[in-house]
Amino acid sequence: MENILENCCRAADKVRERCPLVHCITNYVTVNDVANCILAVGASPIMADDIAEAADITSISKALVINMGTLNARTVESMIAAGKKANEIGVPVVFDPVGAGASSFRNETAKRILENVKIAILRGNLSEMSYLAGLEVSTKGVDTSEADEKNDPVSVAKKTAAKYGCVAAITGAVDTVTDGERVTRIYNGHPYLSKVTGTGCMTTGLVGSFAGSDIDMYTAATAGIACMGIAGEIAYEKCGHIGSGSFHIAVIDAVSSMNGKLFAEKARLEEK
Amino acid sequence: MENILENCCRAADKVRERCPLVHCITNYVTVNDVANCILAVGASPIMADDIAEAADITSISKALVINMGTLNARTVESMIAAGKKANEIGVPVVFDPVGAGASSFRNETAKRILENVKIAILRGNLSEMSYLAGLEVSTKGVDTSEADEKNDPVSVAKKTAAKYGCVAAITGAVDTVTDGERVTRIYNGHPYLSKVTGTGCMTTGLVGSFAGSDIDMYTAATAGIACMGIAGEIAYEKCGHIGSGSFHIAVIDAVSSMNGKLFAEKARLEEK
Amino acid sequence: MENILENCCRAADKVRERCPLVHCITNYVTVNDVANCILAVGASPIMADDIAEAADITSISKALVINMGTLNARTVESMIAAGKKANEIGVPVVFDPVGAGASSFRNETAKRILENVKIAILRGNLSEMSYLAGLEVSTKGVDTSEADEKNDPVSVAKKTAAKYGCVAAITGAVDTVTDGERVTRIYNGHPYLSKVTGTGCMTTGLVGSFAGSDIDMYTAATAGIACMGIAGEIAYEKCGHIGSGSFHIAVIDAVSSMNGKLFAEKARLEEK
Repeated sequence: MENILENCCRAADKVRERCPLVHCITNYVTVNDVANCILAVGASPIMADDIAEAADITSISKALVINMGTLNARTVESMIAAGKKANEIGVPVVFDPVGAGASSFRNETAKRILENVKIAILRGNLSEMSYLAGLEVSTKGVDTSEADEKNDPVSVAKKTAAKYGCVAAITGAVDTVTDGERVTRIYNGHPYLSKVTGTGCMTTGLVGSFAGSDIDMYTAATAGIACMGIAGEIAYEKCGHIGSGSFHIAVIDAVSSMNGKLFAEKARLEEK
Repeated sequence: MENILENCCRAADKVRERCPLVHCITNYVTVNDVANCILAVGASPIMADDIAEAADITSISKALVINMGTLNARTVESMIAAGKKANEIGVPVVFDPVGAGASSFRNETAKRILENVKIAILRGNLSEMSYLAGLEVSTKGVDTSEADEKNDPVSVAKKTAAKYGCVAAITGAVDTVTDGERVTRIYNGHPYLSKVTGTGCMTTGLVGSFAGSDIDMYTAATAGIACMGIAGEIAYEKCGHIGSGSFHIAVIDAVSSMNGKLFAEKARLEEK
Repeated sequence: MENILENCCRAADKVRERCPLVHCITNYVTVNDVANCILAVGASPIMADDIAEAADITSISKALVINMGTLNARTVESMIAAGKKANEIGVPVVFDPVGAGASSFRNETAKRILENVKIAILRGNLSEMSYLAGLEVSTKGVDTSEADEKNDPVSVAKKTAAKYGCVAAITGAVDTVTDGERVTRIYNGHPYLSKVTGTGCMTTGLVGSFAGSDIDMYTAATAGIACMGIAGEIAYEKCGHIGSGSFHIAVIDAVSSMNGKLFAEKARLEEK
C-alpha cells in the first residue's frame, strides 16, 4: 500500500499532463466556477445536458460529473443516459447528490441514479451522505443540518461505500474519504469556504478532473478534496480579511497554482 | 413609529443571527451573484425551480424570491406553485418583475403571478413598476427607458403598493420604498452599479434575506436596498478606477462586511 | 478601402455612444461573463430564450447573438425564431457554433440554424469552422483539436465566408477575419485566455456589441475579437502571475476601459 500523500502529489502533476476532458451535468448556479476550477487544476470541462447529446459527449470524455444542484425533469434523464454510457465504456462517474434528503424529488432522483448508474465516487456533506446511507436525517436545504452533525462521518462514509460499492467522500470541517477499507481524513480547509456558493460543486469538479487522469478513485477523491481545502487556506490567508468576493477569486487563483510540490507542502492527510 | 434607520441597523445584525434559508427561483444570468450576496449578508440561499420540488423547498424556507429575468414556460409554473405554498404557510414572497413591459410574455406572466400569489415586497425599476402600476411605458429591455423617467417614483410606488397591497420599492438614482403610507427615500448607491449585470437581482436577494429574518416588510425592503447602495459606494471608492470586473467583486466584499454598525455610518435614508 | 485599424478605433468609441441592446441566446455556463463584457464595452445585454418572447425581444434589439454552448431542444427553436425575426427586420445575427463537430446534435443544430437564418458574422475556433466549411474534423469537445491545427485558418475562413455569405472569424493563436475578399489577421491575445472558460463566448458578445452599433460587419468582427485580445494582454500583464481567477476579473476590467485611444495603442492588425 502506497502512501496516500505521495499518490496525491503525483496526481496533482498528472492531471496537468493528461488534461482530461471532464463532462459535467451540473447546476446553473455554480457551473461557471466548476468549469473554471476544472481548467485551473489542468483539466478541460465540457457542459452538455441535453438528452440528444449527453451520451455522445460522455463518449469523448475521460470522466463524468453528475451534480443534482438545480435538478429538473429534463436533465435527470440526461444524467442517467450519460451515466449508463459512462459505465458501458469504462468512464468513471462522480456523483454529487446536492440536497439529498431535502425534497422527495431529490430523494427519488438520487435513488434512480444510484440504481441505474454505477458510481465510482460519491461526494456529499454529512446530511446528504447520511441520507444515502439510509440514516434518518433532518436536512436544512443544501447545507449539513446541525442535527445531522451527531453522525460520525467515518462510519457514515464506510456505510455508504459498502452500500454502493464506491469510494465515498464526506466533506466538512474535517473531510473523510474511504473505499470501504482504507480511510483518509483531510485536515485542510477553512470555514470561510462555506461563505461562497458552490465550493462543494467545485470540489466535485476537481475530483472529476483527477478521476479522469488515470488515477485510482481513492486517490482521486482525496486529491480533489484536499486541493480545494488547500486552496481555501491559501485564499483565506490572502483575502479573507477583504471579503467573500475576493476570497472566491483567490480560491480559483490558488487552484490554478496547484501542483505536486505545493500539494506536498500544504496537504494534511491522515490515513487510518 | 420607530426610526427607519434604527430599524435597518438592527435588521443588518439580525439577518446574521437568524441565517434564514431563502428559496430563489431566479434567472440563470445572475444566479451565482444572487446566491453569493445572500451568503455575504448572512443568510443561506437555495435555488430550486422544478415543479416537482418548488413547493417542498419553499416549505423549509423563510422567504421566497421570484425573479423573472430569464423567464421560461417551465419555471413560471414553479414560481406560482412555490408562491401559493408560501402564502399558505406565511412565508413572505419578494417579487422582481424583471423586464415587465418589454414583451407580452413577461407582461402576462407578471399578471399571472400577481393574480395568483400574494406578494409581500415588489421591487423593480421605474419602467417595470410604472407598467405594473398600470401606466403607459416604453421599456427598452431590462433597464429603465428614458421616456419613463418622467414618471414620479414616489407616486408610482404608492400606486403599486395600493394596487397589490404590498410594500413597493423602486430602485434608481434615488430609491423609493413605501408600504402605501410611509415612504423612505434612499440616497445611497453609485451609477457604476449599472455597469455590472444583476445588481438589481442581487438587491432583491438581499431584500429576501431581510424579509426572511423576522423583520417587517417595510424595513426589510429598505434595508436590502440600502445595503446594496452602501456596498456600491464602498466598492466604487475601492475599485471604481480599476474597472467593472474588480468593482463587481468589491460589491460582494462590501456586502460580506455589512452589519448594523457599518449601516449606521453609511446609510442615507429620508423618511417622509 | 479604409484602414481597418482606423475603423476599429472609431468603432470602439461608437459602441459607447450608441449603447445598443444586444439580445443573446447563449449558454448558462458563461452567460454572466457575456453580459458583463457587453456592459463593459458600452452596450446593453438582454438574455431571453423562451419561444414565447424570443422574437419579441429581438424586435427591440440592435443585434442578436446565438451561442450553442449548452444547447437544448427548447432553446434551439427560440434561436431559430429569433434569427428569422432578426433577418426580417434587418438586425444582424452573430452565431457562435460552440462544439460544432463534437456531437451529432450540435452538427444538426448548426445546420438547421445556418439553413434557416442568414448569419452576418460566424465566429468559432478552427475545429468548429473547419467542420462548418465541410472539412473532416476530429473535435475534442469545445477546444480546437490538435489534428485540426493542420488546417490553414485563412483558407478555412474564406471557404466558410463564401459558403454562408457572411463574415467568418476564426479565433486562435492568431485570429482571422474575412468577408470572403478582405482578410485581417489579429496578433493580439494571450494563451492564458484559454484557462478561463467562456473567453470565446465573451468575444462573440463583444462582436455582437459592435455589430449592433451601426458598424460594418467586417469591422465589427475584427474590433470585437481584437478587443478581447487586447484585454487578455493587459490582464495577463497585471494578473497573470496571480492566477486564473484574478486574470478573469482583469479581463473584464480591461474591456471596461476600452476606447478608441487604447485600441489604437494596442491593436496589432494586419490586413492582406
